[in-house]
Amino acid sequence: MPRNTLRPVTDDLATRVNDVARRARAAAAELAVLTRAAKDAALNAMADALQEQAAEVLAGNAEDVARAEQGGTPAAIVDRLRLTGGRIAGMAEGLRNVARLPDPVGEVVRGYTLPNGLEVSQRRVPLGVVGIIYEARPNVTADAAGLCLKSGNAVLLRGSSSAARSNAAIVTVLRDVLENSGLPVDAIQLVEGGHDAAKHLMRARGLVDVLIPRGGAGLIRSVVDESTVPVIETGVGNCTVYVDAEADLDQALAIVVNSKTQRTSVCNAAETLLVHSEVAEQFLPSALTALQDAGVTVHGDDRVRAYSDDVEPVTDEDWAAEFLSLDIAAGVVDSLDDAVAHIRRWGSGHTEAIVTRSLAHARRFAATVDSAAVMVNASTRFTDGEELGFGAEIGISTQKLHARGPMGLTELTSTTFVVTGDGHIRR
Amino acid sequence: MPRNTLRPVTDDLATRVNDVARRARAAAAELAVLTRAAKDAALNAMADALQEQAAEVLAGNAEDVARAEQGGTPAAIVDRLRLTGGRIAGMAEGLRNVARLPDPVGEVVRGYTLPNGLEVSQRRVPLGVVGIIYEARPNVTADAAGLCLKSGNAVLLRGSSSAARSNAAIVTVLRDVLENSGLPVDAIQLVEGGHDAAKHLMRARGLVDVLIPRGGAGLIRSVVDESTVPVIETGVGNCTVYVDAEADLDQALAIVVNSKTQRTSVCNAAETLLVHSEVAEQFLPSALTALQDAGVTVHGDDRVRAYSDDVEPVTDEDWAAEFLSLDIAAGVVDSLDDAVAHIRRWGSGHTEAIVTRSLAHARRFAATVDSAAVMVNASTRFTDGEELGFGAEIGISTQKLHARGPMGLTELTSTTFVVTGDGHIRR
Repeated sequence: MPRNTLRPVTDDLATRVNDVARRARAAAAELAVLTRAAKDAALNAMADALQEQAAEVLAGNAEDVARAEQGGTPAAIVDRLRLTGGRIAGMAEGLRNVARLPDPVGEVVRGYTLPNGLEVSQRRVPLGVVGIIYEARPNVTADAAGLCLKSGNAVLLRGSSSAARSNAAIVTVLRDVLENSGLPVDAIQLVEGGHDAAKHLMRARGLVDVLIPRGGAGLIRSVVDESTVPVIETGVGNCTVYVDAEADLDQALAIVVNSKTQRTSVCNAAETLLVHSEVAEQFLPSALTALQDAGVTVHGDDRVRAYSDDVEPVTDEDWAAEFLSLDIAAGVVDSLDDAVAHIRRWGSGHTEAIVTRSLAHARRFAATVDSAAVMVNASTRFTDGEELGFGAEIGISTQKLHARGPMGLTELTSTTFVVTGDGHIRR
Repeated sequence: MPRNTLRPVTDDLATRVNDVARRARAAAAELAVLTRAAKDAALNAMADALQEQAAEVLAGNAEDVARAEQGGTPAAIVDRLRLTGGRIAGMAEGLRNVARLPDPVGEVVRGYTLPNGLEVSQRRVPLGVVGIIYEARPNVTADAAGLCLKSGNAVLLRGSSSAARSNAAIVTVLRDVLENSGLPVDAIQLVEGGHDAAKHLMRARGLVDVLIPRGGAGLIRSVVDESTVPVIETGVGNCTVYVDAEADLDQALAIVVNSKTQRTSVCNAAETLLVHSEVAEQFLPSALTALQDAGVTVHGDDRVRAYSDDVEPVTDEDWAAEFLSLDIAAGVVDSLDDAVAHIRRWGSGHTEAIVTRSLAHARRFAATVDSAAVMVNASTRFTDGEELGFGAEIGISTQKLHARGPMGLTELTSTTFVVTGDGHIRR
């Protein structure tokens, strides 16, 4: 019987997901013409409401945490799932920060008058309906909702089922504020119904304008493969630090250690170290010691292993890996071009750093390495919307279309051409 | 047997398509660092070569035309396929025009210094490898190759098999110029092997950065459905002219007739006319006569049909249609908001025009209609890269991601962040 009953249930689910998307579309039409003042007032009210109703959110979260612990979920994942008063205050402060940022909608990107007198104005408008498919962390729910509201987009939130009650509690608070503010309540909606619901969301082309997956490589891959809705690929970072022959080796040491160890579970942490052969003998012994002192396991090629007995042999899997742990792949190269070739082969196009005093080398590295961000004499950890001054970030794009690198409010907009004439026709 | 032999052949084809894409990728790395001077010299040499070797191109085209005529292809399609000395001169002039345009690569989109002294520069870079899937017209081959070369992209050209010999002859001329100029010859490649090859191209994510389909709705739909490579949807235009209660009716008449009849086979031609009920009696009799005098068949609702015996009853198919012919759907609406609701339901998000003297109405229409372009007192035919002063156009995007509306050289670029410090690390 299950097979027979499954099909109608699935079809019902497709209808339900499409209905949710249609309501989002209707809400988006109202959001597009809201003033900044109306949006900011709602964002600040949401921040207040989250703190006032923290008890309800924490109660929902406690249920998710209990279920995860009973199911034997690893402690690190449970920790990402767990909310506290402090974390709720952080979500609220995030919403207030978004309220302080300029409104991207209405910005004139290009404007000019043509020889025939037609006035052309290309203006930023909201994308429309943005779908976020994400894992674990319930704070993404408030962050994404706030960024989408500010940029005039309706948001469809498809969180992981492990955080279902936390997300539902947060969304209830946010929707109540929309309703009390006279804004369209369907501007923020959860998409419920498990993995099948996510699949329907991915096929809702024409109703959903873009999907942004936030999570591990497996999640992102499956969204890219299955979606007919345009996707912005985010976040996988196999980042490399290249220590050039012309490097200031003290800077190089600090940048390598910081890029690898300042925080390991993030996409802008370094996963590979490449050292020019001319400075290998001078740099590697101290670098390997510093990394090992910081608890890092180094996976090195033969030329690296010559400087330490404590280096594991590196494999192709290591070169390709986004470790997200205290591991680093390390090799010696004979030229900047060899370093670039290595990065183009193994890297993920997220962030690469070069440490050099040579302007020519910095320029060549930046021009050829083909990544979303290039750091010259700086840690890879600076590829981050907050660090780059965007004020907030919805993710880091590693694809080239629409947005590349950290995405802020601007990247949640499209544009439209408004062309004004006085009875102009084409001859 | 066919089934048994088909699979290995298909696998070979997949390998061949991936090899073509890999060679494009290698070429793209070289193109990314070319100076504008080198690219412009090649473009001008290509223009000269096309005219010098016109006989070879015309010979290849004659074979395509003969085959099409033998196969009973309609005369209008054969005409689109046919090249002449004049059309080859037009292609050459197009390449020279592209050479004259500014190089988008290297443009600094955002640049600033952070409080910690890090210098941030977001710069335009080529997308990398651009795939164009197109129908019939062989001039697209030269146009697309020129725009991609100027913007530093390698191009993979998948034309229709009906134009195979024409396209091969054009690409041979262009590649010879690349070789003689010392530029990477694989910057311009044909993707051969029928529809199956196109399918492999659509799955070459990671090798191809974007696909741009140019052709009818069926072609675009199949690329969108089957592609894992990011797609820019182009060109389907169900455009509407709305004659507001506050319209200058002389302007309205000229704009309606021009939008519908100046050229019918193009995506920016009007397919729908909506008239506010307050001016219907004054406007429609003369408008219907003018359209009918121009050979247009009007498909009208009951309120339109009250003004003429020569109006066909309109169907839902007509409201949804991109006629591309001397047909127009027409209706009377009771408000601007009703016109917008109609357009949001039936339109394709390409171009809508409003004719009005009211600033408030123009603003409301532009803010709510949700299309790539809005014309205020101007013909829909102005949504065109050349008309808007872009100098050239690779297509008109009707999606919201990456590019919306006419796409020129800028829309063939991505960006990269270059962040320069002095040993900066995160605390």
